[in-house]
Amino acid sequence: MEDTNNQKSFFAVQDFYPDDFAWCYGCGRLNDHGHHFRTRWNNEETLTEYIPLPQHIAVPGFVYGGLLASLVDCHSTGSAALALYRQDGHELGDAAPVPRCVTASLKIDFVKPTPLGQRLTVRGRIVEIGRRKVIVHSDVYAGDTLCAKSEVVAVLAPTTMRPPI
Amino acid sequence: MEDTNNQKSFFAVQDFYPDDFAWCYGCGRLNDHGHHFRTRWNNEETLTEYIPLPQHIAVPGFVYGGLLASLVDCHSTGSAALALYRQDGHELGDAAPVPRCVTASLKIDFVKPTPLGQRLTVRGRIVEIGRRKVIVHSDVYAGDTLCAKSEVVAVLAPTTMRPPI
Repeated sequence: MEDTNNQKSFFAVQDFYPDDFAWCYGCGRLNDHGHHFRTRWNNEETLTEYIPLPQHIAVPGFVYGGLLASLVDCHSTGSAALALYRQDGHELGDAAPVPRCVTASLKIDFVKPTPLGQRLTVRGRIVEIGRRKVIVHSDVYAGDTLCAKSEVVAVLAPTTMRPPI
Repeated sequence: MEDTNNQKSFFAVQDFYPDDFAWCYGCGRLNDHGHHFRTRWNNEETLTEYIPLPQHIAVPGFVYGGLLASLVDCHSTGSAALALYRQDGHELGDAAPVPRCVTASLKIDFVKPTPLGQRLTVRGRIVEIGRRKVIVHSDVYAGDTLCAKSEVVAVLAPTTMRPPI
């Protein structure tokens, strides 16, 4: 299978996280072992695409829920960062630092078993945005099939999560 | 760090899943790449313990949310299987086949950042049980610190998830 998970043909918010916040197993560009999820605007929605690896199964032929939870988690914190950045008048590529959000709560409903071997598409909508809290609703598709729906409450990273100097 | 994630000093429900249902990346004993979460009774609670790997980080020093979601996911489906099995009068080691549940929905609240480098303990309570649906509430601790709380609705695996013959 062609590795299309590492295409760099577009800017993703994770490309701009400060180095100290770019180590996430899900979406950190500096984590050599992780998934490298990448999230961007697609008109008024946010978009993350990923092709699960053969081992990411629940039972043979179907993707395991933990991978989907991880995917919507990083997609949603990325969406929240994009939304806060745009709220401040910025777009990716501007000089201003991109904010980094973490997840306060995550809910995912598994609508249908998610088939392995297809590109998954996560489409996010910003349903509420404040100064430091964003609520993101997302749908996970395999092809045209809706497989999961999520609601994530993301907040700006607290200072207690900053790595020790 | 001593690898205490693969200790086999107790029976876990995942040891008894039918082979066709033992491939989960989170908890399948036959998945060479996965986490191998293992869940058992501890009096009236269910218990899963796991020490995250160094790469399972959100930011340096703290565990990423996707790992915690995966952990409570498999812990909860395992707890549901244990509860359904006990409801039918069985305990692990009996000859009767152990049921296999999947997740219908998962909600996780991240209460505090979860420090890396400690054993995580997930303690589950069965709050509702029917013939094929179980609701499990769980708490994730790092030492004595409550780091996350979850509610999972687990259901018996549908026939559409059975692997092709």
